[in-house]
Amino acid sequence: MECAILIIQCRDQKGIVAAVSQFLYFHNGNVQEVDQYIDNETGDFFMRAKWELESFAIQKDQIERIFAETVGVKFGMNFSLHFTEPKPRMAIFVSKLSHCLFDILSRYYSGQFEVEIPMVISNHDNLRSVVEAFGIPYYHFPITKENKLEQEQKQLELMKEHGVDFVVLARYMQILSPAFIANYKHQIINIHHSFLPAFVGAKPYHAAHKRGVKIIGATGHYVTEELDAGPIIEQDIARVKHHNTVEELVQIGQDVEKVVLSKAIKYHLAKKVMVMGNKTIIFN
Amino acid sequence: MECAILIIQCRDQKGIVAAVSQFLYFHNGNVQEVDQYIDNETGDFFMRAKWELESFAIQKDQIERIFAETVGVKFGMNFSLHFTEPKPRMAIFVSKLSHCLFDILSRYYSGQFEVEIPMVISNHDNLRSVVEAFGIPYYHFPITKENKLEQEQKQLELMKEHGVDFVVLARYMQILSPAFIANYKHQIINIHHSFLPAFVGAKPYHAAHKRGVKIIGATGHYVTEELDAGPIIEQDIARVKHHNTVEELVQIGQDVEKVVLSKAIKYHLAKKVMVMGNKTIIFN
Amino acid sequence: MECAILIIQCRDQKGIVAAVSQFLYFHNGNVQEVDQYIDNETGDFFMRAKWELESFAIQKDQIERIFAETVGVKFGMNFSLHFTEPKPRMAIFVSKLSHCLFDILSRYYSGQFEVEIPMVISNHDNLRSVVEAFGIPYYHFPITKENKLEQEQKQLELMKEHGVDFVVLARYMQILSPAFIANYKHQIINIHHSFLPAFVGAKPYHAAHKRGVKIIGATGHYVTEELDAGPIIEQDIARVKHHNTVEELVQIGQDVEKVVLSKAIKYHLAKKVMVMGNKTIIFN
Amino acid sequence: MECAILIIQCRDQKGIVAAVSQFLYFHNGNVQEVDQYIDNETGDFFMRAKWELESFAIQKDQIERIFAETVGVKFGMNFSLHFTEPKPRMAIFVSKLSHCLFDILSRYYSGQFEVEIPMVISNHDNLRSVVEAFGIPYYHFPITKENKLEQEQKQLELMKEHGVDFVVLARYMQILSPAFIANYKHQIINIHHSFLPAFVGAKPYHAAHKRGVKIIGATGHYVTEELDAGPIIEQDIARVKHHNTVEELVQIGQDVEKVVLSKAIKYHLAKKVMVMGNKTIIFN
Repeated sequence: MECAILIIQCRDQKGIVAAVSQFLYFHNGNVQEVDQYIDNETGDFFMRAKWELESFAIQKDQIERIFAETVGVKFGMNFSLHFTEPKPRMAIFVSKLSHCLFDILSRYYSGQFEVEIPMVISNHDNLRSVVEAFGIPYYHFPITKENKLEQEQKQLELMKEHGVDFVVLARYMQILSPAFIANYKHQIINIHHSFLPAFVGAKPYHAAHKRGVKIIGATGHYVTEELDAGPIIEQDIARVKHHNTVEELVQIGQDVEKVVLSKAIKYHLAKKVMVMGNKTIIFN
Repeated sequence: MECAILIIQCRDQKGIVAAVSQFLYFHNGNVQEVDQYIDNETGDFFMRAKWELESFAIQKDQIERIFAETVGVKFGMNFSLHFTEPKPRMAIFVSKLSHCLFDILSRYYSGQFEVEIPMVISNHDNLRSVVEAFGIPYYHFPITKENKLEQEQKQLELMKEHGVDFVVLARYMQILSPAFIANYKHQIINIHHSFLPAFVGAKPYHAAHKRGVKIIGATGHYVTEELDAGPIIEQDIARVKHHNTVEELVQIGQDVEKVVLSKAIKYHLAKKVMVMGNKTIIFN
Repeated sequence: MECAILIIQCRDQKGIVAAVSQFLYFHNGNVQEVDQYIDNETGDFFMRAKWELESFAIQKDQIERIFAETVGVKFGMNFSLHFTEPKPRMAIFVSKLSHCLFDILSRYYSGQFEVEIPMVISNHDNLRSVVEAFGIPYYHFPITKENKLEQEQKQLELMKEHGVDFVVLARYMQILSPAFIANYKHQIINIHHSFLPAFVGAKPYHAAHKRGVKIIGATGHYVTEELDAGPIIEQDIARVKHHNTVEELVQIGQDVEKVVLSKAIKYHLAKKVMVMGNKTIIFN
Repeated sequence: MECAILIIQCRDQKGIVAAVSQFLYFHNGNVQEVDQYIDNETGDFFMRAKWELESFAIQKDQIERIFAETVGVKFGMNFSLHFTEPKPRMAIFVSKLSHCLFDILSRYYSGQFEVEIPMVISNHDNLRSVVEAFGIPYYHFPITKENKLEQEQKQLELMKEHGVDFVVLARYMQILSPAFIANYKHQIINIHHSFLPAFVGAKPYHAAHKRGVKIIGATGHYVTEELDAGPIIEQDIARVKHHNTVEELVQIGQDVEKVVLSKAIKYHLAKKVMVMGNKTIIFN
């Protein structure tokens, strides 16, 4: 059933929940989910409400305006309105490693993600055949130091052309330029193969092996200009032992990476992630 | 800061959240936490709201009546009202095994539980000295087949006398009579040393060892007349290996038992547990 | 580097480890891994040793005989000898659900499994195209009550023809006949979607939902004649909440299923699983 | 039953396991546990063997000499010999926070640790009564900048006098001097309240809260001169949410701290920890 999702952020004030609830009730909204969070340190208020459109008294294209006029303005709200249809459109970026990509494709195939995947973009060509077996177009953009910005520009054009809403870096081994990131603020999800903030940067499994840690991890986060420092969406870990080689850490870690990335995607798709400074609120 | 906690259960209807929010807003309640859940299978609605009393416009002893008249009756609500002060009063029942008891005492000492502990009751006398070192009275009620109901009656009298609100069975190796249980419906928390419904009844670690499971667990649940079948509040597990003896399973399991039991107590204390049939809703 | 793996089972006696170590040392074996386990309840001894063949003084086809004559007979050992080359040959059985199959294919693609996959067998045809994109033959054997034993016979013939060593039931929704199982004793790995022994049989997620458990799980085990009662190889769990529907339990559980099944396959491939009665020893 | 434990470290060479096994077998040792590890990067060999003394043909006070002469010298081994009796003697250092201390006392009481605890040392006096209820002497050493080295000297004297073998810092909020550490090399176990190497130093829960991580952790490690950088023995984590305050992180983390610390103590007591450079091998 088609639903609307309202995401609200404003200064905490008395009566917000009452006002939003009243708005939805008054217009006959059948509320499915509602969550709120008050950050006592900053005094910020966050809310997410999801309701069914079928019985709702306001037409889809009028909701934003009417909510703004009757509720939003009064409380000085930043809010955004989303609908579960049409489905969001996700571009997947990948290099040579296949585990995260195949895991996403598997979930897409079984209907676990409410998403369209108009493209897989890679700087290598090796994963084309499997991607195409899932019915998804595969675009090969070789990257060199020289052509990087130019290729990014072409990627962006392709993404605009196909209406891409957000990007998943499924172990894409290229650092995106600030200009690219600026086009998709808080809409690029990366999987980093360590429990951040430990082992920022390249070769975290090597660093973990060298330090002799007993747990390794993975972190799904939004990409910002500073490497591996964006808002964390999801993390998880796995136990390792002294006899595990770096190669074994890589294998053990891949299982964590793919589960963490898929959870981050799922939260993002459901509009359950709100960014507050450099942190996330997950309404899950 | 003293707070009120309102627990609501009724048939799902449009406008409930709006009405409750409006009630709290209208009377100047500073809301700290609010959660709701609709069970789509049964059509039942559950809600928990916590707000500060200081600024609230209704006097403490009038809230229940006024809420009933202005909101409760309209929606046919079952509701209960609680206050964070005075603290709930908890009786701990224990046999010979000390790990859960000492863990609770440790949390009590550090102020992790908002609770009074007017008594520890045991069918053995061995744990008296440590309990008394924490400043808590220790009552020894030896139990035999013959005197069991009689002793239960004395325990109940002692509990009433000291205003006990709820009971924690911290590995109490006696099965309580239905009459005892009826006095504290959904107010007796037991820790069972398996991940229920696996290994109901006595000696679950022996049964787990015999079956060759790779995980063992523990379950915190409300006690009902049927053994180990009451509503589950919390569960967790630990990994075990083929070389672990039953004695090692017992040791490994004790760490799970005490953490699970303490979480169940914490949820119960905060009125975050609602019972729906034989299941629980945990507003956590 | 090609290795030999020796798996030993016998009555516990003094001097076994010394004798085996001496054998490997005397013939210049470069030992990579050696594990042993004594079951003190039964007095049984279990051992696994892996060493490099390159420098070993005995020819590959003579090791079994010479070990038997010089060590095995003396201690009354049951033992089996394996080599890392050629790779074991695994048949995958699947019905309509794709998540375990795709996860296995993904690991196969990235070289995580040291295995050949000569066939995927299914009672449905829907997963053919993806399987074939991975270069693996797909065989469709529709199953009815009437043709089941006949189809099993054809499957067995196909498996023999292609030298299948062991079978993985990747959510294959058919119960295999005792005759089929007898052909591959302790060589058929099933994934059951609960933490056994809880929720044996059909629809475990429905049963878990009804009981109101806070954790769900999955169990990888060898198939025996009794349903879901064979030796457990691996188990894991995931946390769930009161608001999770059965459909959500299914999705959450699938992530556990595929990781558990892949670990069971990995242990089996490395000959790290030994069966003792209805339990397993995992030399991991 | 009294056992001997042999800990061996040397260059990897063929025949080590055979020689040690032969030694134990020849002298009629009933082997309980034997583990070995070869570090392929460094070419180092590590081994731990535990056997019963009762039937052993060599007298307790002759084992070290005879092993050295017949095996140790041949392979250039560094080795140490330990006995399960008398029990190791552990000093506990604590400041004001009680959770780790009480957890250790609880395990001590139930016989989970094979250890003597001749003293608890604290820079505060608040935990005296509970410690003494467990029958353990409590020593109060107030620490100031000025008297620190002097007090450490007195602590060392007290420890020597009571034959302390190793030290557990159960949330002791003082940094030990290099001189103190040198007296107990790899014999001082600290619990750090983060998953190292993330959040080294003071106030890790504050840092974790600020970074917005979704998991927090704890690390048990040997103390070396560099703060929080010693060999890691054990780690674990817990999940946290955006709404958790720093105070809640502290509470959630305490459960992890105490379990991790107790595991580190257990491994250390059983001589299952070997230090290799700045890493540990855990024969568990």
